[in-house]
Amino acid sequence: MAIQRDKKFLEKGHVGVMIEWLASFGKTENGGVTRLLYSPSWLDAQLALKSKMDQSKLDTYFDSVGNLFGRLPGSESNGKTILTGSHIDTVVDGGKYDGAYGIIASFIAVLRLFQTYGLPKKTIEVVSLCEEEGSRFPLAFWGSRNISGAYNLDRVKKVNDSEGIPFLEAMKQAGFDPEKYTPPVRDVERFVEIHIEQGMILEKNKNQIGIVTHIVGQRRYSVQIKGESNHAGTTPMQYRKDAVSTAAHFISFLTEKAQVVDPQLVATVGRLNVKPNVPNVVAGEVEFSLDIRHHEDTVMDHYCDVIFAEFKRFAENLNMEVTISQWMDVKPVKMDGEMCTWAREIAEAKNYRYQEMISGAGHDAQVFGAVSATSLLFVPSQNGISHSPKEFTSLEELETGIELLTELLYKLAY
Amino acid sequence: MAIQRDKKFLEKGHVGVMIEWLASFGKTENGGVTRLLYSPSWLDAQLALKSKMDQSKLDTYFDSVGNLFGRLPGSESNGKTILTGSHIDTVVDGGKYDGAYGIIASFIAVLRLFQTYGLPKKTIEVVSLCEEEGSRFPLAFWGSRNISGAYNLDRVKKVNDSEGIPFLEAMKQAGFDPEKYTPPVRDVERFVEIHIEQGMILEKNKNQIGIVTHIVGQRRYSVQIKGESNHAGTTPMQYRKDAVSTAAHFISFLTEKAQVVDPQLVATVGRLNVKPNVPNVVAGEVEFSLDIRHHEDTVMDHYCDVIFAEFKRFAENLNMEVTISQWMDVKPVKMDGEMCTWAREIAEAKNYRYQEMISGAGHDAQVFGAVSATSLLFVPSQNGISHSPKEFTSLEELETGIELLTELLYKLAY
Repeated sequence: MAIQRDKKFLEKGHVGVMIEWLASFGKTENGGVTRLLYSPSWLDAQLALKSKMDQSKLDTYFDSVGNLFGRLPGSESNGKTILTGSHIDTVVDGGKYDGAYGIIASFIAVLRLFQTYGLPKKTIEVVSLCEEEGSRFPLAFWGSRNISGAYNLDRVKKVNDSEGIPFLEAMKQAGFDPEKYTPPVRDVERFVEIHIEQGMILEKNKNQIGIVTHIVGQRRYSVQIKGESNHAGTTPMQYRKDAVSTAAHFISFLTEKAQVVDPQLVATVGRLNVKPNVPNVVAGEVEFSLDIRHHEDTVMDHYCDVIFAEFKRFAENLNMEVTISQWMDVKPVKMDGEMCTWAREIAEAKNYRYQEMISGAGHDAQVFGAVSATSLLFVPSQNGISHSPKEFTSLEELETGIELLTELLYKLAY
Repeated sequence: MAIQRDKKFLEKGHVGVMIEWLASFGKTENGGVTRLLYSPSWLDAQLALKSKMDQSKLDTYFDSVGNLFGRLPGSESNGKTILTGSHIDTVVDGGKYDGAYGIIASFIAVLRLFQTYGLPKKTIEVVSLCEEEGSRFPLAFWGSRNISGAYNLDRVKKVNDSEGIPFLEAMKQAGFDPEKYTPPVRDVERFVEIHIEQGMILEKNKNQIGIVTHIVGQRRYSVQIKGESNHAGTTPMQYRKDAVSTAAHFISFLTEKAQVVDPQLVATVGRLNVKPNVPNVVAGEVEFSLDIRHHEDTVMDHYCDVIFAEFKRFAENLNMEVTISQWMDVKPVKMDGEMCTWAREIAEAKNYRYQEMISGAGHDAQVFGAVSATSLLFVPSQNGISHSPKEFTSLEELETGIELLTELLYKLAY
């Protein structure tokens, strides 16, 4: 096999050129990127990537749902693949790095390996996953879940986007005819993803690399408080069944307890709606969302026991109703211990400032992590910002991530 | 002068008949009442009342803005008037008692007095005030403020209702031509209003009568908290600038402090809006309303000092911004001490279960109270409910209120 040798992939600044190039597909007025699954900008980006992989003489192909693969065949291939990459889709007006960096880093790393060491023993494939965010359709991880076998076409038959366009119709229009769907018969031995952190831990700790040991589980609840709507002037404080002040107590309590129960636990009330929501009326009803994340189910169990008991005690005391309903339960996923060790050894050998850490965000790595040995690596996000045109990681940090990824892939495939 | 003697006004159940009769003007499907200023149902009610007063041979007349008066002339008239009544307008889908009871009770009391004692020494006028609620136009107390001289046509020139109809046009359509406006030249010696409590204090205390000593002042604020919108998974609790949990702390603090500072202070957060209001995003912004009421400005001053200092301390600690803007400042009004004493003496002589109390709601009595000796009396509201079709006061309680009002008017005018 004749891989084209292209010196620019060895240049340190090249990742920046590639980031800007990929961000030109779906560029927004704010300098952000919008590439929603199966949209024209999404298709342009996948086809442009395919063309670039073709130029580099990787064996390229799409699967039935639009995941793009660029294959570097192994000399001792046993049919198993080392898969590396991330997702091509973005949120609306998102940044240039989320997902895109992982694809580009993998592409550069694989080409560098070949240009330096020739063909690997084990087959490596760069993957540009078709969808992770769930920004167009209410369905996250479509790309990785299709590969891992967790989802198939049955799962999307009744799914529409916000304009009412059926999932299967959008898929067909992008050139992926559901009639021709074949389930993936993949044998992924290992998956490696590199991603921006989307948090500020690496930056605060002045570290260059995060080696993820776990991806958190996520539980989401809706908490509904029913009190009594009353006149704000004529109802003394002690006679009130005020849903707002009750919600305030719950939120103060859960915020404080999150920090006491475990420093790595996060609990967020991001949405809160009041009825009737009028200045001079004591509110009769509040509904708020509660997002809880930790890498151990037992910690979340304990935390939920503590706070829900307090919610009930407090509400009963005031003769108010509280209803807690769970609408999401994603289990924590552990990354492969051996791969964490190898990544740590590389980072130490190269004198990188690194740390082991937990991923508080969901990633394709958690889908692969449930079925095969998986590694997730982070580079810093400036000010922790992501899902925004302000997303930024310096060229030097991007380059350090690629170097680590290259070494790890060498360890896995050569 | 020949007042028509009509035995039915002496009957105890007659107040119930009158309440139902008046509620038939603007009756809603829910069994509530909607009579918005200058609307057809409002005009029908005022004209029907005028006609009933005419039948009872009171001297009736409208002023320039639609306040209706029914006059019982005093034998020793000095041009000064004892005014008694309440407001004819309602909120949308309001109850049968709020305002209406005060007009009916005054009408019955005045007729009973005449039928029992003949003409008074001092002129008494029953007034059906055209507007108190401010439900159609953003302008409360139009009726009483016009009489007291606080408002005139200049105040309403640029005011429209929610459908864009100008105030002056609506007024003209109801038959009150702004071109013919003459400012009132009234000499109100005293004003007496009886009203439903709109709270649950009398009911909880098993009292029949409330003698109002003060009407609270009202301050309304908008509190805006600016933090930082962040990823709910990747932002550890200690790095957050969470506007929701900060608002929760403020509301818990202000609720607790309201009860500590003074048992008669009320503080209400009735409206609260979150941005971006999404379950998996730490909220960057919260705006909430704060309604504070007490009958002493010094108590409100102290309370505001305490809570606003804590808001600022807490926000500064987290490097967050808090902005507090006041958009309403209504001063507390004291009711006439002499009239309170007389009302108390009557209640004691008649063995009524009564109490002195503060009015937490605004009433026309606060407008008159600022310019002349004024008394406000309450009867119980079942479950404290008002501004609702569920508003209810028993016939017996309504009757007790009328008896007290009758005795007080006797004391004032005979």
